[in-house]
Amino acid sequence: MRTLIVHAHPEPRSLNGALKDIAVTTLRDAGHEVQISDLYAMRWKPTVDADDFGETSDRLRVVEDSGHAYDTGTLTADIAAEQEKLLWADTVIFQFPLWWYSMPAILKGWVDRVFTYHFAYGVGEHSDTRYGDRYGEGTLAGKRAMLSVTIGGREPHYTDRGINGPIDDLLFPIQHGIFYYPGMDVLPPFVTYGTDRLSAEDFTDTAKAWEQRLLSIEQTDPIAFRTQNSGDYEMPALRLREGLEPKGRTGFGLHVRA
Amino acid sequence: MRTLIVHAHPEPRSLNGALKDIAVTTLRDAGHEVQISDLYAMRWKPTVDADDFGETSDRLRVVEDSGHAYDTGTLTADIAAEQEKLLWADTVIFQFPLWWYSMPAILKGWVDRVFTYHFAYGVGEHSDTRYGDRYGEGTLAGKRAMLSVTIGGREPHYTDRGINGPIDDLLFPIQHGIFYYPGMDVLPPFVTYGTDRLSAEDFTDTAKAWEQRLLSIEQTDPIAFRTQNSGDYEMPALRLREGLEPKGRTGFGLHVRA
Repeated sequence: MRTLIVHAHPEPRSLNGALKDIAVTTLRDAGHEVQISDLYAMRWKPTVDADDFGETSDRLRVVEDSGHAYDTGTLTADIAAEQEKLLWADTVIFQFPLWWYSMPAILKGWVDRVFTYHFAYGVGEHSDTRYGDRYGEGTLAGKRAMLSVTIGGREPHYTDRGINGPIDDLLFPIQHGIFYYPGMDVLPPFVTYGTDRLSAEDFTDTAKAWEQRLLSIEQTDPIAFRTQNSGDYEMPALRLREGLEPKGRTGFGLHVRA
Repeated sequence: MRTLIVHAHPEPRSLNGALKDIAVTTLRDAGHEVQISDLYAMRWKPTVDADDFGETSDRLRVVEDSGHAYDTGTLTADIAAEQEKLLWADTVIFQFPLWWYSMPAILKGWVDRVFTYHFAYGVGEHSDTRYGDRYGEGTLAGKRAMLSVTIGGREPHYTDRGINGPIDDLLFPIQHGIFYYPGMDVLPPFVTYGTDRLSAEDFTDTAKAWEQRLLSIEQTDPIAFRTQNSGDYEMPALRLREGLEPKGRTGFGLHVRA
């Protein structure tokens, strides 16, 4: 495997830093190649602005200007380098703490800047009969992606009836909207709960479980998200056809096959 | 009213810039006070790191160190100023484009940095019988909050069966997890779809609708999220008690009263 780990934590000696280090060591020891984008260490610029693009319209238009810069090879070197890493990798891992039910800003800014128009979206034909190569198709099709997320709070709070909402739903905008959108298959996430009170013994268990997940990536079935262009969705509304879902399923879960 | 508008777009002459300007003018013309945090114009620092806190442990611990800095008044001036604005306001508006199904990184970084431990979370008693003042209670209780979001894609893609997921679910981590968590009541969002092909006439309609929403903020019913500490949730699991929801409702929608 060729794995890109995108890591987002300001403290190297944190749990997130440890999980990143375990991933690097475990994968390399098993003979795999690994590249790491350690966003804090790289001092990654998190904000999309006109400086990202070689030349922009007089009035910045993020979609068009990012697409033009991608097409003409005039994206800044830092963005181009991350796109190259994504094209090199067959496996992508995001390692981060859940802050306010989503990614830390520095990681969101990696997505905002690297996932440009014509690279990650606006790919393929857009018409009344087809709305792009996305959700299972696109530039990153055939690759695998996986989240490794640490959570301070308690696991029951993130279950089906838990007050914060189900973890699968909280991660859906990332797993479906960021990973699956440009074509990557998404493996079930590795989630570590209760990090506010993790004991040394808990950490040993977590490290062991994480190593096992890493070493079984190639044998792990992805989440069965529905491809956009295989007939499950009405055109041009892109609403799921009636009756395809298991009885009673609603919301984000509609977009996972039974 | 005293309204704080937190605005996140790099181009002043964008649709988002126009909607922000409309909000300022409409509210001030109606006699209300307005403060604006224009994050790109302020060159807001989006990343949480050790520089945010007067002194940190040898090894940075984001939760504890942010709480200690808040308690001792040693947060950086930019963070303290935003907390002051939140305490001053009775109404908070986030104006932003939906990028990758969430906020632009600069706005996520405003939340990550301003919503410190002991200010926005870790407030109140935490024990086996109570898990803090949150979800309807907390530092910002009694205030109102509202999103104004622009979306390039088409509205049907964001409906109940739409391929991107229902807009209410996509915004839940922000509306419930960021606004309601520290106590704010959340008004229904103002969402502008199809911004990739917005005509001058569409813009006129949007501007009119936005003005009406702004002028009726005080008469608008908030989303009926369930308070954490009124008996709807089992302790200590904080799972919603069985049978409280309308038949068949699942997922994030469980946490909205019928």
